[in-house]
Amino acid sequence: MQRITYVNGDYLPESEAKVSIFDRGFLMADGVYEVTTVIGGKLIDFPGHMARLKRSLGELAMAAPAGEEEILAIHRELVRRNELDEGLVYLQVTRGAADRDFAFPPEGTAPSLVLFTQKLAVLERETVRRGLKVASVPDLRWARRDIKTVQLLYPTLAKMEAKAKGADDAWMVDDEGLVTEGSSNNAYIVAGGKVVTRPLSHSILHGITRGAVLALTASTGIELEERPFSLAEAKAAEEAFITSASAFVTPVVSIDGVPLGTGAPGPVAARLRELYIAESLKRAI
Amino acid sequence: MQRITYVNGDYLPESEAKVSIFDRGFLMADGVYEVTTVIGGKLIDFPGHMARLKRSLGELAMAAPAGEEEILAIHRELVRRNELDEGLVYLQVTRGAADRDFAFPPEGTAPSLVLFTQKLAVLERETVRRGLKVASVPDLRWARRDIKTVQLLYPTLAKMEAKAKGADDAWMVDDEGLVTEGSSNNAYIVAGGKVVTRPLSHSILHGITRGAVLALTASTGIELEERPFSLAEAKAAEEAFITSASAFVTPVVSIDGVPLGTGAPGPVAARLRELYIAESLKRAI
Repeated sequence: MQRITYVNGDYLPESEAKVSIFDRGFLMADGVYEVTTVIGGKLIDFPGHMARLKRSLGELAMAAPAGEEEILAIHRELVRRNELDEGLVYLQVTRGAADRDFAFPPEGTAPSLVLFTQKLAVLERETVRRGLKVASVPDLRWARRDIKTVQLLYPTLAKMEAKAKGADDAWMVDDEGLVTEGSSNNAYIVAGGKVVTRPLSHSILHGITRGAVLALTASTGIELEERPFSLAEAKAAEEAFITSASAFVTPVVSIDGVPLGTGAPGPVAARLRELYIAESLKRAI
Repeated sequence: MQRITYVNGDYLPESEAKVSIFDRGFLMADGVYEVTTVIGGKLIDFPGHMARLKRSLGELAMAAPAGEEEILAIHRELVRRNELDEGLVYLQVTRGAADRDFAFPPEGTAPSLVLFTQKLAVLERETVRRGLKVASVPDLRWARRDIKTVQLLYPTLAKMEAKAKGADDAWMVDDEGLVTEGSSNNAYIVAGGKVVTRPLSHSILHGITRGAVLALTASTGIELEERPFSLAEAKAAEEAFITSASAFVTPVVSIDGVPLGTGAPGPVAARLRELYIAESLKRAI
């Protein structure tokens, strides 16, 4: 059975899901996206994803393709049509199709709206049991990583470079030797018993899961420090982990081949993962 | 009459020219492009564009979608079918369509190849007669501007910012106050009678027109300095200009509202434009 996707108003089997070659998403990476996790057919952190989408569109002066209620209805219809129990709904908005020009297209050009689903085990994952190996790479991305654009070429290259080194994912490091984030996730260490993660700025994605996990961290009484940390400090940390919409909280067990703590997934990551899943299932819609 | 485009083996009217929503060009900006100018139905600097395409593909470990002879034949067929006398042929290659994943798609995934034409006056342009006004913006792009990828969101934002300031285009300035290049062109000043332009590196596009114009500059006896120049030095320059495949050599008459020299298009730009057009018409195929 083919997946059913949503493309600019139509529900289409994936083989027919197409956009114009003049879509500015295709020609100029002039688009933004969100990925919402589905568990038991329900959407996790949906309002957070919609708030960030609104922010991304605003930062780029891009028109909203539909209201939040309509976007929610499309998510639910895709979950229903694809009988999606566990996985993701991917959403992308672009500035629409128009003859190629660096200048924005004429006023009134309709933005494009595309959604599709992916089946994926998110609760039970081998990577959670064994922990991730990460490799460091220089962060070569543009300066506005806080806007969730489709300019993902470098993160894909970083991930491939990490895999070539025998790791699962990359941690990107800025010119000052400080870790920014993973290829598609935020990065954390546990040092001196405290959870340390880089504060929000233009340098990193404002992770929806990050926000939820930091709120939970406070509730557990674990101390939190929002400050940049260096690669060297990370390699000496007691443990480390990442957060993202689909990875939730996933432990990191080594960096550039250096094992962290005992070399096994750490207790803080395990506890935060458990808490996050419990909390987000309560709020799923 | 609709334009005829080329999409993965088919010649299609533009309304039917579509790619999969799973194309990595659309989802992840995982694609590169070239733009070749057409005059009198002939292609300008075609071998240069093919050499750069090959380099871009190589830097990204992306498979070539077709041989150079076949790509040339497609260019010529599009020029013929669209009765294109003067304008551009746009070519884009992506890593192909596959279910969304940061990791590269499975071995054997076919790259996508898309081409279309644009009618455009390239020989006679108002901007050449009056000269361009440019506005400076910080260069926020990723660190590999030498690869001609479709990650063009920031150049489009820069161009819009320049337009909002009453200018025609942006010159981007790095953290050290040095000009990198324009939104879609290389940047030059004339200072102390010498043509000054930033040397090739990962910081700027390796312009095909740049290469040709620098060779011509040498032949005229005008002295050339390949070195970075600051925004301040540019504002004090005798004249300035840009080069690109479609703008050839186009004079710049002001930067951030500061007129250069007499405030009119300068003689060095005019001479190099004339020489470049004459030379490239001789070599057009």
